[in-house]
Amino acid sequence: MSQPLSAAVDLIVLGGMILTLNEANDIHQDGALAIRKDTIVAVGPRPEILARFSAATVLDYAADIILPGLINAHTHAAMTCFRGLADDLPLEVWLNDYIFPAERQISRDLVYWGTKLAIAEMLLSGTTTFCDMYLFADAVAQAAREAGMRAVVGEVLYDFPSANYGPKDNGLRFTEELIQTWRHDPLIRVAVQPHAVYTCSPDLLKRCGELAERHDTRLIIHLSETRQEVADCQQHYGASPVEHLFNLGLLNTRLVADHGVALSHHDQDLLAAQGVSVVHCPESNMKLASGVAPIVSLLAKGVNVALGTDGCASNNNLDLFQEMDTAAKLHKVYHLDPTVMSASTVLHLTTVSGARALNLHDRIGSLEPGKQADLIVIDCDRPHLTPMYQPYSQLVYAAMGADVRTVVIAGRPVVQDRRLLTLDVEEAMAKVREYARQIKAKVEPR
Amino acid sequence: MSQPLSAAVDLIVLGGMILTLNEANDIHQDGALAIRKDTIVAVGPRPEILARFSAATVLDYAADIILPGLINAHTHAAMTCFRGLADDLPLEVWLNDYIFPAERQISRDLVYWGTKLAIAEMLLSGTTTFCDMYLFADAVAQAAREAGMRAVVGEVLYDFPSANYGPKDNGLRFTEELIQTWRHDPLIRVAVQPHAVYTCSPDLLKRCGELAERHDTRLIIHLSETRQEVADCQQHYGASPVEHLFNLGLLNTRLVADHGVALSHHDQDLLAAQGVSVVHCPESNMKLASGVAPIVSLLAKGVNVALGTDGCASNNNLDLFQEMDTAAKLHKVYHLDPTVMSASTVLHLTTVSGARALNLHDRIGSLEPGKQADLIVIDCDRPHLTPMYQPYSQLVYAAMGADVRTVVIAGRPVVQDRRLLTLDVEEAMAKVREYARQIKAKVEPR
Ligand SMILES: [Zn+2]
Ligand SMILES: [Zn+2]
Repeated sequence: MSQPLSAAVDLIVLGGMILTLNEANDIHQDGALAIRKDTIVAVGPRPEILARFSAATVLDYAADIILPGLINAHTHAAMTCFRGLADDLPLEVWLNDYIFPAERQISRDLVYWGTKLAIAEMLLSGTTTFCDMYLFADAVAQAAREAGMRAVVGEVLYDFPSANYGPKDNGLRFTEELIQTWRHDPLIRVAVQPHAVYTCSPDLLKRCGELAERHDTRLIIHLSETRQEVADCQQHYGASPVEHLFNLGLLNTRLVADHGVALSHHDQDLLAAQGVSVVHCPESNMKLASGVAPIVSLLAKGVNVALGTDGCASNNNLDLFQEMDTAAKLHKVYHLDPTVMSASTVLHLTTVSGARALNLHDRIGSLEPGKQADLIVIDCDRPHLTPMYQPYSQLVYAAMGADVRTVVIAGRPVVQDRRLLTLDVEEAMAKVREYARQIKAKVEPR
Repeated sequence: MSQPLSAAVDLIVLGGMILTLNEANDIHQDGALAIRKDTIVAVGPRPEILARFSAATVLDYAADIILPGLINAHTHAAMTCFRGLADDLPLEVWLNDYIFPAERQISRDLVYWGTKLAIAEMLLSGTTTFCDMYLFADAVAQAAREAGMRAVVGEVLYDFPSANYGPKDNGLRFTEELIQTWRHDPLIRVAVQPHAVYTCSPDLLKRCGELAERHDTRLIIHLSETRQEVADCQQHYGASPVEHLFNLGLLNTRLVADHGVALSHHDQDLLAAQGVSVVHCPESNMKLASGVAPIVSLLAKGVNVALGTDGCASNNNLDLFQEMDTAAKLHKVYHLDPTVMSASTVLHLTTVSGARALNLHDRIGSLEPGKQADLIVIDCDRPHLTPMYQPYSQLVYAAMGADVRTVVIAGRPVVQDRRLLTLDVEEAMAKVREYARQIKAKVEPR
């Protein structure tokens, strides 16, 4: 009898435990993944996969946990340049005396290098996809593409002139060109990203909505981040920020609302009914003292909630492992109930739900045949990850970004044994240090 | 003219930036420390130190931050064995179905190896001193001593029989012997540690207080951790836990109160007036949904507050960098004020104030001539620590335990370039994994 030939694939990855985060939440002890080009062909028990497939490259992580790459659903990557520039200050002082003056220094080059540095940090800590809102979004896209990282980018749009595109009317044109440029890219997507209801006129918001609809992209906005924002919006428009967007016809499945801290029950019901996704940024909301977003309530109402770090000026890192830990613990103490926001819930926010928010759930968020091979490997042979009773719990409550050993995006290893393969991290650090010197000279921290 | 001879010391450590955390909070750019045996002889600008001293061993961390070793003022080290055994459960289920049955497995050997593993984790993440409350405190002391780690240990005391010392009356005798045994040890101190007001009779508490006084040790107790504890104490004794201890004559500078979550203003005033130290354990309080301790208020009243991780079953790691970050952010959002619990405040809690709580402030907590050479080196050449505007902010909001490069305790390097020099971490992990298998077999996680 002849031995049936095994099918050729490009890459096989072996893991001590593979968390698929598929619909059934299947976990394969001593599992394996077969990957052809950028796509997962099969995932299952090791003997089965090794019998069915052969590959030139086999990555053996037999003692480690493999899971889908984490998704950072809201950040401003280039703000790494302002990490720790000013902390523990009243919001107005922080913004007016530090962040705004610092952002006046912004150039395409600063955004490019600040984003490169952020990408290095994100990849090394297990993030494979990020959604970015900033100026010079073309530079963000370029930096991500060069590093082989998956990203949804968007030029931040508002009523006042931009250091990038000039007068406001150019913003939509710039965004449309960006959409055209990246239309067929396998890693980069473009979204329309008006900044907030207090920086964008109803007219601008409506035109943003039309642009997003015309090109079938996400429409992404900071929404109800603070009580002040809600009070101001009530005063201006006689409506909460959520109601205001509803009145403008923008509240639908296309919309991604970042923060969603100060939401009434009526707001929450509207978001649920209209299929809006919310991105929760607990560490930023805590550090800026914005408040606790009603995530437990939103989840109970069926809202799709993703997790984000926000920018480095208000966090001050991009480590989603820390963000998951904080998210789980914050809501437990807020509700005085240790059963809410379980490790499993939080891990799903940061993978499956992140993918759904960004309209990428047909491609990423879980490890399943047909999906993109975006995965991370957690080094479990560490004192703080010993012993191991329950993997979700271990990842959320005990692991840290530095435990990420290897990262694969679209079938391509971008980090291997903690070494970045796709960008020169020393160069990025040197460039950002130089920008920081310039910023510091003009905005002297007290 | 003859060149003056430089004085011989044992160790010189060079740093890019030395944070002394002395009274004036001096920071030395391009600084150096001269260390003779276990003691700091001098700290200052590099040229000055190098001119005055010479040493056979020079550790050069010219690009890094050096600061005092962190102090974990409350933990149960051996509970590493139960890390992640059961999470996200109601408190009664967690305790009755998991932790208590698991603790019935406890042996001296389990405590010894569980503590060894905890020590590995703590040293690798920059903790140089821990205060431990657990059974078999002699094994805790032994494990710390062998690893060259500084510790305050105490046998946990309560009314019911102990797996270690048997009937309750033996507990005080066991503690007294422990005090005698370790009396002259340079690294280990023993404290009297009754568990809590709901597990210890007034009589036991009074005898604990007498023992602590007789030997001039700290008296350490879990106090007002939950609202339930306060309600029960009110019902039993017609007094809050703080008032109860006051009535027993135990509220004084000798006392260290762990948690202090559910404190009335009267309680807080009593703690302040009597000079009691409070150990804040924010991550444990959040994860168990106990509440937010009124730390901002306690600090305003002049109470000495230290930071602790609590045990690994309720955290689930021993990383004080994460704990500092969480502490700062939790109180900002709780008070809706970004200026409270600054990075500087939190770093002082974890060094100077921790030393004061443990009655070790004449020896540790800051880098000053005459103090013990307990210091840690932070590797700043990392993407998530770039750029660097303000060191306190960087350490609290951006750094993680894995950024610790080197650790010196009492002048002896115990971690060098992320390698543990004083214990076999593989052995400790293997032992704890074996205990975990036994625990899991009896307490099957659902
Ligand atoms: Zn934002
Ligand atoms: Zn405790």
